[in-house]
Amino acid sequence: MTDPGPAQPTVVIVGGGFGGLKAARALAEAPVRVVLVDRQNHHLFQPLLYQVASATLSPADIAAPIRHILRTQENAEVVLGEVISGDLAARQVRLADGRDLAYDFLILAAGSRSSYFGRDDWAGLAPGLKTLEDALEIRRRFLLAFERAEREEDPEIRREWLTFVIVGGGATGVELAGTLKETSRLSLPRDFRRIRTDRARVILVEAGPSILANFGSGLSEKAVDGLERIGVEVRLGQPITGMDDRAVQLGGERIPTRTIIWAAGVSAVPLGAGLGLPVDRLGRVIVAPDLSVPGHPEVFVVGDLAAFTHGLNGPLPGVAPVAIQQGAWAAENLLATLANRPRRPFRYRDKGSMATLGRGRAVARVGGLSFTGYPAWLAWLFIHLMLLVDFRSRVFVFFEWLWAYLTTQPRARLILRNGDQASSKGRSDGAD
Amino acid sequence: MTDPGPAQPTVVIVGGGFGGLKAARALAEAPVRVVLVDRQNHHLFQPLLYQVASATLSPADIAAPIRHILRTQENAEVVLGEVISGDLAARQVRLADGRDLAYDFLILAAGSRSSYFGRDDWAGLAPGLKTLEDALEIRRRFLLAFERAEREEDPEIRREWLTFVIVGGGATGVELAGTLKETSRLSLPRDFRRIRTDRARVILVEAGPSILANFGSGLSEKAVDGLERIGVEVRLGQPITGMDDRAVQLGGERIPTRTIIWAAGVSAVPLGAGLGLPVDRLGRVIVAPDLSVPGHPEVFVVGDLAAFTHGLNGPLPGVAPVAIQQGAWAAENLLATLANRPRRPFRYRDKGSMATLGRGRAVARVGGLSFTGYPAWLAWLFIHLMLLVDFRSRVFVFFEWLWAYLTTQPRARLILRNGDQASSKGRSDGAD
Repeated sequence: MTDPGPAQPTVVIVGGGFGGLKAARALAEAPVRVVLVDRQNHHLFQPLLYQVASATLSPADIAAPIRHILRTQENAEVVLGEVISGDLAARQVRLADGRDLAYDFLILAAGSRSSYFGRDDWAGLAPGLKTLEDALEIRRRFLLAFERAEREEDPEIRREWLTFVIVGGGATGVELAGTLKETSRLSLPRDFRRIRTDRARVILVEAGPSILANFGSGLSEKAVDGLERIGVEVRLGQPITGMDDRAVQLGGERIPTRTIIWAAGVSAVPLGAGLGLPVDRLGRVIVAPDLSVPGHPEVFVVGDLAAFTHGLNGPLPGVAPVAIQQGAWAAENLLATLANRPRRPFRYRDKGSMATLGRGRAVARVGGLSFTGYPAWLAWLFIHLMLLVDFRSRVFVFFEWLWAYLTTQPRARLILRNGDQASSKGRSDGAD
Repeated sequence: MTDPGPAQPTVVIVGGGFGGLKAARALAEAPVRVVLVDRQNHHLFQPLLYQVASATLSPADIAAPIRHILRTQENAEVVLGEVISGDLAARQVRLADGRDLAYDFLILAAGSRSSYFGRDDWAGLAPGLKTLEDALEIRRRFLLAFERAEREEDPEIRREWLTFVIVGGGATGVELAGTLKETSRLSLPRDFRRIRTDRARVILVEAGPSILANFGSGLSEKAVDGLERIGVEVRLGQPITGMDDRAVQLGGERIPTRTIIWAAGVSAVPLGAGLGLPVDRLGRVIVAPDLSVPGHPEVFVVGDLAAFTHGLNGPLPGVAPVAIQQGAWAAENLLATLANRPRRPFRYRDKGSMATLGRGRAVARVGGLSFTGYPAWLAWLFIHLMLLVDFRSRVFVFFEWLWAYLTTQPRARLILRNGDQASSKGRSDGAD
C-alpha cells in the first residue's frame, strides 16, 4: 500500500483478548511491526469460562498461549507483562517491571474486571468470573461445599452449604446458575451417601426487573421459565444489600448460604486513568467515532476498555463481538492512515445474543428472530465451537461436551489448592 | 463367607492412591462398611504426573474424584479430610478438623511426599513432583522461564533462564528430563522471536553411579544414551551440595540456573510416627509379613507408607504396582480373618519397569526381557492407557497423546497463578 521506508512503524497492542488478538491478526500483512502485550500468557475464550467453573471443561480447552496463536505471524512479537502507565506525548507505555515500550500506534484492548461497585470487601466473599484462576476458585468452592455438607451433622448448616447464590442476571450469571444446578441435579447425586445434591438450591439474584435484559423481546421471560423448570430460583428486582460468610441480605430478607458468586458487573481495568485519558464512571475510555482517543489519533481503544456511544443511547455492551469488530476496525483505520486514506467511523453489526440454560435449553436472538429450547441450544453449541480460536480446542471441546451430554459426568471435578495444604508437604486439613 | 451379624465391621482406609483404592475395591462384596479418607478429593494417576508438568496433559486427564470412582460401591463411603493421629488402643483415628473415626480394621495407605533429606530450605527453590499442584507449579516455572529469557537482554542471565536442572535419576527425573527437553526442542521454537528454545539445556543430575538403578541389566546405560541423543545432559555420581535461586552446586562445580526440579527422593508421610508405630529412617511403618503392624493385627499398612523387607535385601520400592498388590493383599488378609481363615504372607510379583525418554524412545524390562526404543515406547503407551483408572481418562489421554505426537503441539501450555496477580483484580506485574 504505502512504502514502509527503512523502519516500519511499531504498533503496540495492550491485551490479548478478543479485541487485541483480532487487531494483531488484522495487521498480519501490513507494513508494521506488531508488539502484543498481555499479563497472561494465554488468550481466553471467555464465553465458555463458566464451564470451567462448573467442572465440565479444563482450562486448556478454552485457552491457548498467545505466542502459539501468533507463531506464524512474522511481524508479530508477544510480550508477557502488564502495562500500568505511559506517556502519550513521548509515545511510550510502561510495564509493571519498569520496562518502557515505544510505539508509533497504540491499540488499548486491556478489557475489564469484576466490579463490586464500591463494596470491595465483597470480593473475597463472592468471587467473580473473569479469569481461569477465578473459574478454578469457583469450581473449588462449588465442589467443596458438597464435601462440607456431606460431613455436617447440623441440618441447618448443611442447608447453608447446599445453597448457592449467584448475583447478577446477565449472560454469565444465567449460564452459571443453569450449569451449577444441572451439575448438582444430574452429575453429583450418586457420589454422595448422606446428602441429596439434587436438592441443592441455586438462587439467581438480579437487582433489575429482568434477566438477560439486553436480549430483548420476550426472551427474558422465557429464560426465567427455562431456569425455573430445571429448579433454579430466580429473584428479580432484588438488589443485594449486604453479605457475610454465612448469608446474603436482600433488603429485609436474609438467605443463609456459604457460597456466593459475583456476576453482577464489571468495570474497565484502570489503564485509561493510568494513561491520563478521559474515562466514564466505569473507567472506560471515551473514544471518538473512529475508535481513537480525542487529540491522539495514534491511540485506539477497543472492547471492554472503550466507551463507544456515537449514535447510540448508551455505550456498547462489553461482549466479545463488539471487541472483535472494534479490533478489526481499529486496525483498518490505522492502515487507512498509513495509506493516507480517510478513517471511517465505527459501526457495530449486532448479530444477536444467546445464552444456555441447561441441557437442551437456551435462548437466542439472531437478527430479528428469537429461538428457545433445543434449536437455540444446538445453535449455541455450533456457534461456540466455530468461534473457538483454534482447531485443537474445537475438537477437544466437542468430545468433552459429547461425553458430558451422554454420561452426565463431566470430567474436571477436581478440588485443587484445597485450602493451603495442596502440596505434598502435609500441612493442615485438606478440607479447611 | 462369615455371618456379619447385626453390625458390620468398619474398615477405615487412609489414602485414596493406588493402594487404598485397590483395597477399597477389593472389599466391595465383603460384609464390611468401608470408609475411605483422603485429604484430596481425587485419585491421582501418578505415573503420568510428569506429563502435566510438561504441559501435555491437563489435571482432569489423570485424576478423577474418589467419590466418582466408588459411586456404585454400595458399602463404601468417602471422607475428605486428613488423618493426623489416632489411638490404636481405642481403635480410632483423628482428622485434622478434630473429628474421630472409629474402626474395626484400619488400612493405612497414605503414601509419601518429597523429601529433601534434612534440607527443607531447598523445598521452595526446587519443587518436587507428587501432587497436581506440584505439577502445575513446575509447568508454571518451566513456561515462565522461557518468557523471562525472551525479554532478557543480558546473555548470561538469559542462559540461566534457559538452563533446567532436574535432581534425581529415578523414573520421575528421567521422564521429566526427557519430556522437558523435547518440549523445548519440538513444541516451543516457533513461539519465540529472540531465543532459541531448542538450545535450552536440560541437565539431569544423579548422586549415584547410574540412573534408573532398579531397572537393572544394561537399561541404565541405554537410558543415558537415549537421553543424550535428544540433548539431555546426564551427570552421574554428582550429588547436589548446595543451591540458591541462581545456581546449583555440584561439589566444586556451580551450574547457573533459574529452574531446579526435585526428583531425588521421597519419604513416607509422617502418619506412622503420628500413630506411634515403629518406622524406619524414611518414616515408613515396619510391617509384618502379612502387612499388619506387629501387635495390631487389625491394622495394615500398604504402599509407600510401608517398609516391607521380609525375604528381601531392602524394602520394596515405592512404585504403583507394589501399592496395588499390597492393597489387594491386605484386603484379602482382612477377609481371611473375618472368615477365620489363616492370613498369608505378602509376596510381590515384579512384572517389570518402564520409563519413557522421549518421542518413540523408552526403556522397559518385562519379566526377564529388556526392550528399548520404539517397541518399549509403544508398550509403555499401551500399558499406561490400560492402567488409567477409568474409561473416560483413557479415551481423552489417547487423543491428547495422538494430538501431541502428530503436531508436536501439546495443548496445556498455560501459566496460571502468574505470580500473585492471577485474579481479575489487576495487582502486580504478571511476570514477577
